[in-house]
Amino acid sequence: MEIKIVKDVLEKNKKLADNVRELLRSKNRSMFNFMSSPGAGKTLLLERLIPELLKRNVKVGVIEGDVATLNDSIRLQHTGVPVVQINTEKFGSLCHLGSNVVLAALEQTLEEEIELVIVENVGNLVCPGEYDTGSDINIVIVSVTEGEDKPLKYPRIFQKTNLAIINKIDIAEACDADIRLIKENIRKIAPENPIMETSARKEIGIAELADWMLAKHKVILESSNTLILK
Amino acid sequence: MEIKIVKDVLEKNKKLADNVRELLRSKNRSMFNFMSSPGAGKTLLLERLIPELLKRNVKVGVIEGDVATLNDSIRLQHTGVPVVQINTEKFGSLCHLGSNVVLAALEQTLEEEIELVIVENVGNLVCPGEYDTGSDINIVIVSVTEGEDKPLKYPRIFQKTNLAIINKIDIAEACDADIRLIKENIRKIAPENPIMETSARKEIGIAELADWMLAKHKVILESSNTLILK
Repeated sequence: MEIKIVKDVLEKNKKLADNVRELLRSKNRSMFNFMSSPGAGKTLLLERLIPELLKRNVKVGVIEGDVATLNDSIRLQHTGVPVVQINTEKFGSLCHLGSNVVLAALEQTLEEEIELVIVENVGNLVCPGEYDTGSDINIVIVSVTEGEDKPLKYPRIFQKTNLAIINKIDIAEACDADIRLIKENIRKIAPENPIMETSARKEIGIAELADWMLAKHKVILESSNTLILK
Repeated sequence: MEIKIVKDVLEKNKKLADNVRELLRSKNRSMFNFMSSPGAGKTLLLERLIPELLKRNVKVGVIEGDVATLNDSIRLQHTGVPVVQINTEKFGSLCHLGSNVVLAALEQTLEEEIELVIVENVGNLVCPGEYDTGSDINIVIVSVTEGEDKPLKYPRIFQKTNLAIINKIDIAEACDADIRLIKENIRKIAPENPIMETSARKEIGIAELADWMLAKHKVILESSNTLILK
């Protein structure tokens, strides 16, 4: 009974995620979904990443997801890019961004000149991995402070992402964290996926991430143009 | 429609949570539910806490919740206490422990001599706060590595707990974490609740936590005996 309900919710979510992708294609936009535990450093990473993307002449917009507060939107204000905040508190404290709220947020940005949309999902290593937001690319961030076995304990989210980022590498030593072991564990779950190492605080690996995203962005837009020509 | 479904699930969960509490009372047991983000240090804290509780002559048992792996149960083996592992992967990768699985786990321990049950919930700062496990006491752990604003961004779990623990205080400086600000933010959400500071790695605050739990344990058993006498 409960499993049936979950299946219905997931199917409905998938359908709206396809609508999100159609809308993105019609506006010539790509969308990247960032997921992690609470406090893995998503927002600070975006604070560093957005200026790197802007330097590469791509117009960025952000959809911010949180249970409560406008904190993260406020933190991103200095980047100067348009930000839409979603508070899931109003939807029963939802533990993830569903494609319905992402679609609604996206519709609020249609007048803006945006080419690349970044979604910062609710801090959670389980549920966001189950719900397609309509993003083209899914990225999971794991912090060195969280222990080396997180990919093994939360396998679904690592399987469903295109890139894994190991963040806060500057404090790996202070936490006795073994980065090589984190990588090994990610590879056990998602052997094909690239892995990047970053420190948002020390600005390590941010330019490489921006380059990787821009390359993906171009591929997405080209394939979408091809589809339209067909 | 979706909200109705969620309400039904929560009501069903609440009913089974009451069954859990009845079973606990009938066996003269108390139950403590530990919740946090992935990697906040729950398991290492339990590795240090359980010997402190055993020193105080209380018989401990553990219910371990994870999406996948037996890692945490294996880590607790050296404490010598009975551990039941729940892997929610088999229940659609559930992001929290429902009272149904806790009840099933508890029923597996009925032959064991246990007085105090510790539940280690799935690492998640949203969903476990919404689902009553049937525990008498709920405890939330926040690590200094997660940023100071987590109580504000995930208010429900802090409101629903009896104690907040700030863990990994030994690396606060390495993370530029402001412990006073974390405390202030907890007090904004749950002004009445006690707050403890711990470092499982450096064994700070563990004895105090064991003392606090034991005092609560006695109160729970006394009130349960009173209820039986009535």
